[in-house]
Amino acid sequence: MKERILPSWNAGPAKAAITGFVARVTDESGPDYVPPAERIATFDHDGTLCCEQPLQIQVMFARARLAELAAQYPALAERQPFKAFLEHDLGTIHDFGRQGVLEVAFETVAGMTVEEFQLIARAWLRSARHRTLGRPYARCHYQPQVELLAYLRANGFRTFIVSGGGIEFIRAFAEEAYGIPPEQVVGSSLKLRLETRDERLALIKESELNCYNDREVKVKNISLHIGRRPILAFGNSDGDLAMLRYCASGEGARLALLLHHDDAEREFAYDRAFRLSPLAEALDKAEACGITVIGMKDAWSTIFVSEDA
Amino acid sequence: MKERILPSWNAGPAKAAITGFVARVTDESGPDYVPPAERIATFDHDGTLCCEQPLQIQVMFARARLAELAAQYPALAERQPFKAFLEHDLGTIHDFGRQGVLEVAFETVAGMTVEEFQLIARAWLRSARHRTLGRPYARCHYQPQVELLAYLRANGFRTFIVSGGGIEFIRAFAEEAYGIPPEQVVGSSLKLRLETRDERLALIKESELNCYNDREVKVKNISLHIGRRPILAFGNSDGDLAMLRYCASGEGARLALLLHHDDAEREFAYDRAFRLSPLAEALDKAEACGITVIGMKDAWSTIFVSEDA
Repeated sequence: MKERILPSWNAGPAKAAITGFVARVTDESGPDYVPPAERIATFDHDGTLCCEQPLQIQVMFARARLAELAAQYPALAERQPFKAFLEHDLGTIHDFGRQGVLEVAFETVAGMTVEEFQLIARAWLRSARHRTLGRPYARCHYQPQVELLAYLRANGFRTFIVSGGGIEFIRAFAEEAYGIPPEQVVGSSLKLRLETRDERLALIKESELNCYNDREVKVKNISLHIGRRPILAFGNSDGDLAMLRYCASGEGARLALLLHHDDAEREFAYDRAFRLSPLAEALDKAEACGITVIGMKDAWSTIFVSEDA
Repeated sequence: MKERILPSWNAGPAKAAITGFVARVTDESGPDYVPPAERIATFDHDGTLCCEQPLQIQVMFARARLAELAAQYPALAERQPFKAFLEHDLGTIHDFGRQGVLEVAFETVAGMTVEEFQLIARAWLRSARHRTLGRPYARCHYQPQVELLAYLRANGFRTFIVSGGGIEFIRAFAEEAYGIPPEQVVGSSLKLRLETRDERLALIKESELNCYNDREVKVKNISLHIGRRPILAFGNSDGDLAMLRYCASGEGARLALLLHHDDAEREFAYDRAFRLSPLAEALDKAEACGITVIGMKDAWSTIFVSEDA
């Protein structure tokens, strides 16, 4: 019996674009053949691999950290931007923008070692649940994308996450959720300080941003971390447009994909008005830039992974 | 017939330290077992995987580029630091220090796209020869280390280069020479600029340094690019001491190795006096820091890879 490819993708133009592309670049006798070493695929994270509504998961983690800190230092709860987080005041939080929100998130972990942070993030991910989806935050990622990542790897691709989110946060679950090891995660980062703790060298997270991995910076970090131009890239917001254009404008066969959240029933429907990470320019320029837009509603037969880990 | 392990390593304490460590961390029933996902090995490049005397290969590449530029702009040949490079004035070049030399090297490639740079670097590597070793620069790396990298990978390790040298330069040959793909190379880097050239998005090298990957910065970049603390690290200079200590001071079984160039006959003998990249503090502190010093003369039966690619 033939194994079904990408079972959570409906037959249709999106699935055909993907399977057709993979067939072309892996056909050694065809004109579009790409050697395995050059089969690089880059995926945005929040909104592309994982639900980002009403807030990215990392923001919910920051909120939980802030609640702990506010219990120790009650004055914190009266000060912005912390007040908005603690009160789950979405309008105000959205006004801060993605980078502003990320900076708050980073504040809540400053002073920890990288290794301590990962333990805390993993423990929270296991226990916390999404308010409206009613599932653990560790199970809010998309089943079709898990299948796509595995399908690409089975076809000789190396798969990377290139996210505006914090690099250490995504690394805390990317291997388990997506089969993507830490070195294949690129993200925003804090400055680090090297010091001796308990007679061992340790890296301490500082509160200052090292790099906000968004828009053009994603392309620069792809070069710095990966060293090759991706032949497939997948995003869902204006923050991914530069990466998608960088992919699409390389030589040879390329596939640049843009996920459009148009499924209010099973997930969320949003684009231009989502201030934390809008999708507007990329939608308008997709056709001219050779980017394939994929509507979640038609393309996916299942949205989320099973709730059981 | 049993295949010989590490054939270019002489039987002795260095080889025993390596094979004993690998046996321990791969023994699932033993107390030092490390799951494959955490078997990260980091290697310095110049002087650890490859000959760096009398100058790192990248410096010779920069010199060749300078000679081309000086033919176009003769005034360049009269100005320092360029004059010293063009006249192969080793004393003056060594005085600039590693970072100063790297900055000159970077000057000679500013304005190129990352992709153009790789083509030019590869073409030069294929044609240029080392002055005293009489072999192509692309064949000045060490056979025992090629075997060690392959042996580690065969035992479930992922192998990384973490070098003070330019990240793009090392990537131009690391896959062919060491079996290490671009995303597993961490190095010094230039700032990049994204612009449209010939209707395609391209990354242009600027002349400003983005990151000089030496000493403590190596540890920070291991965290940023790799995301895990290495369980094996191999260096040869004071620039590697922080990385070796970071490796050695992690929990569980660790192997931190320091190559000592003590073989004037077959390669070069140098340590404290090599101003471009001295070995002094690391040698003095090796024992206290749990670092194993390996003398090239006793440890290696063969030094270089075969001259034929």
